[in-house]
Amino acid sequence: APSPSACRCFAPRESRCANRSCVDASRRLLRPRRGWRVAVMHMKSPPVNSLSLDFLTEFCISLEKLEMDKSCRGLIITSSLPKVFSAGLDILEMYGKSPESCGEFWKAVQEMWLKLYSSNMVTVAAINGSSPAGGCLMSLTCDYRIMVDNPRYSIGLNETQLGIVAPFWFKDTMANTVGHRITEMALALGMLYSPAEALKIGLVDQIVPEEKLMSTAEQAMAKWLAIPAHARQLTKSMMRKPTVDRMTSKREADVQNFVSFITKDAIQNSLRVYLEMLKKRKA
Amino acid sequence: APSPSACRCFAPRESRCANRSCVDASRRLLRPRRGWRVAVMHMKSPPVNSLSLDFLTEFCISLEKLEMDKSCRGLIITSSLPKVFSAGLDILEMYGKSPESCGEFWKAVQEMWLKLYSSNMVTVAAINGSSPAGGCLMSLTCDYRIMVDNPRYSIGLNETQLGIVAPFWFKDTMANTVGHRITEMALALGMLYSPAEALKIGLVDQIVPEEKLMSTAEQAMAKWLAIPAHARQLTKSMMRKPTVDRMTSKREADVQNFVSFITKDAIQNSLRVYLEMLKKRKA
Amino acid sequence: APSPSACRCFAPRESRCANRSCVDASRRLLRPRRGWRVAVMHMKSPPVNSLSLDFLTEFCISLEKLEMDKSCRGLIITSSLPKVFSAGLDILEMYGKSPESCGEFWKAVQEMWLKLYSSNMVTVAAINGSSPAGGCLMSLTCDYRIMVDNPRYSIGLNETQLGIVAPFWFKDTMANTVGHRITEMALALGMLYSPAEALKIGLVDQIVPEEKLMSTAEQAMAKWLAIPAHARQLTKSMMRKPTVDRMTSKREADVQNFVSFITKDAIQNSLRVYLEMLKKRKA
Repeated sequence: APSPSACRCFAPRESRCANRSCVDASRRLLRPRRGWRVAVMHMKSPPVNSLSLDFLTEFCISLEKLEMDKSCRGLIITSSLPKVFSAGLDILEMYGKSPESCGEFWKAVQEMWLKLYSSNMVTVAAINGSSPAGGCLMSLTCDYRIMVDNPRYSIGLNETQLGIVAPFWFKDTMANTVGHRITEMALALGMLYSPAEALKIGLVDQIVPEEKLMSTAEQAMAKWLAIPAHARQLTKSMMRKPTVDRMTSKREADVQNFVSFITKDAIQNSLRVYLEMLKKRKA
Repeated sequence: APSPSACRCFAPRESRCANRSCVDASRRLLRPRRGWRVAVMHMKSPPVNSLSLDFLTEFCISLEKLEMDKSCRGLIITSSLPKVFSAGLDILEMYGKSPESCGEFWKAVQEMWLKLYSSNMVTVAAINGSSPAGGCLMSLTCDYRIMVDNPRYSIGLNETQLGIVAPFWFKDTMANTVGHRITEMALALGMLYSPAEALKIGLVDQIVPEEKLMSTAEQAMAKWLAIPAHARQLTKSMMRKPTVDRMTSKREADVQNFVSFITKDAIQNSLRVYLEMLKKRKA
Repeated sequence: APSPSACRCFAPRESRCANRSCVDASRRLLRPRRGWRVAVMHMKSPPVNSLSLDFLTEFCISLEKLEMDKSCRGLIITSSLPKVFSAGLDILEMYGKSPESCGEFWKAVQEMWLKLYSSNMVTVAAINGSSPAGGCLMSLTCDYRIMVDNPRYSIGLNETQLGIVAPFWFKDTMANTVGHRITEMALALGMLYSPAEALKIGLVDQIVPEEKLMSTAEQAMAKWLAIPAHARQLTKSMMRKPTVDRMTSKREADVQNFVSFITKDAIQNSLRVYLEMLKKRKA
């Protein structure tokens, strides 16, 4: 089980959360048929649900358990924290770390993507706050995305804004959702979209008022669960397997690539500048 | 020549049509230039233009004849039956049949797709009724799709609703038309779209009142035929050859895959339930 | 340095321009940061900026110089001529020429595409006039496209209208921008779009009144240049490399293919008819 330090985020370390667990998958809702269950995963790693190594490890263990539980047919992912779904990859896992640590971290990011993108469960992202970078990626792996219609929230793969680069499988996942051209411009400019803009380009499927988020997610889930499971799963696999295969075949090279990129002096410097900017903004 | 039994459909067998031929390609209209002709294929296999083995065989023979007729430059496909364009693959060809029969049937489905998707003629679908599953596929192979704007009609690849799965080349054909994400969701949920919805996502190119369908199809045909034929054909081949090649290279495996899937007890059971539902609905 | 004959176009040869250079890259504007520059390339090869061998050669040399100039971060491409951005490939390079000449010409077209599509600079097309065929291709290689909102101007890959065929890498570039289906129909019909239509399908990113074109291009440039250069360049390469690699791996075959196609009697005849039509229209 992850220690309290699991809940690192890219805010100053002092603000680590004190929760024993960053992911709460205990609540169950909806019983669409006798013996079926849908899990709701509430991410709660204050202050901003950063995807640290510990968070990702715990997340993947939870996911694996749900996947093996034959009665669990669906998963809704949402946040317990105000205003943020997930702030994305924990920059503290990439800044000032050894190549070995960076590599281990990256493997955990890959693992999360692989497990979510090829899940046999129906997966719905109930996006109740901002969702940049890795948070957007997490949403993109789901079968369906519903976002709270609050113009203060934003979503997108904004890596270039930080001087880093979304890897090819982030890109593939986004292109599978919004097409090649929008992905090209969004990644180049590191664009963050408001919920209304995200809906317009197809980055999310639906936007709703905050108070209707979970009921809408449940309705969407019911619709997806009404389809015979084996047919739905085979179809999902057919749609996503080429993208998954491409990543797994290049997985080791992708780790090497990430490590050699992120440990460069220039990149470490960019991250330092970004972290200092965050600290100042907080103060 | 196909026997009267050619016109099986997935309604009870008693309702087999008594026509000698399911496909009527005899009428010609439009003579865009001296010596040029456009064929109109009126599908008439009551009650719902199901794609049975006999229907497909006859359809492919007609198509081959037109293809070899150098004066025939265009083909408009429409239905002679009220309210339905084509109900798609004939379930009676897949239910309670030997693996050999199922395999033979599937080869005929492949053949129809190959011939239509790589036709040298300009092909226009004049969709004057509902067009689920195989009926939608047939429309998707055409160069241009016009649908009657009647909200009672619907179109889509709804295979998962029946517990079966659209194969990869159905998926490729749809993704080539409406993109990856819409295809992913449409196939997973087995979605059927109204004409207005189909237009919005690009599943059809135009919607018109019933009485304007054929004149609109003729206008579209004239526009396509105005382009130098060899340039248009080379362009069509460039756009579609990768998809066609992918299918032909996996054709045998695709037959094996279909046969082993469709002859499973669970799938046969799904089909039985569906057929009984249809019978009840009729009664 | 190119001779005055550099400025051939597909209008009658008498109208060759008398400028010593078809491309004017001398003006610089915007200095987004100390030591940074943005080049503006004004195409001026009267009457219609046709892409002749000499034009392409000069264009590529200019581009190479800018690419090697580390202080030059961006390139805006526009036209000095009224009403036309570029009329596309110079038909006089393909009509009545030896196979060797045709091959040399085609290699220059490939070279222009390769250099532009994989440029490390931010490239913005400021489309201030019609932009058919090769002119449209040139625009499509840029990172961002802004077109003057004048309904008399049009843009598109209209090759089939002339009886010729856009090669696979023209097609790939367009499909990367507007998707497979729109490309299929646009290429088959040789469609030319008004600025408003082009915006709607995503063929251009923005339309503006003529007098706001350059200031809008500068604003777009500033936005792209605000992104850390290495991250933006790596992202651009990730998005475009598969398309570039596909072309380079088939480059020699593509030349052979073009030469054997264009030197056919039937095609030469189509070009002759087209040239005579242009002459008459002018007279």
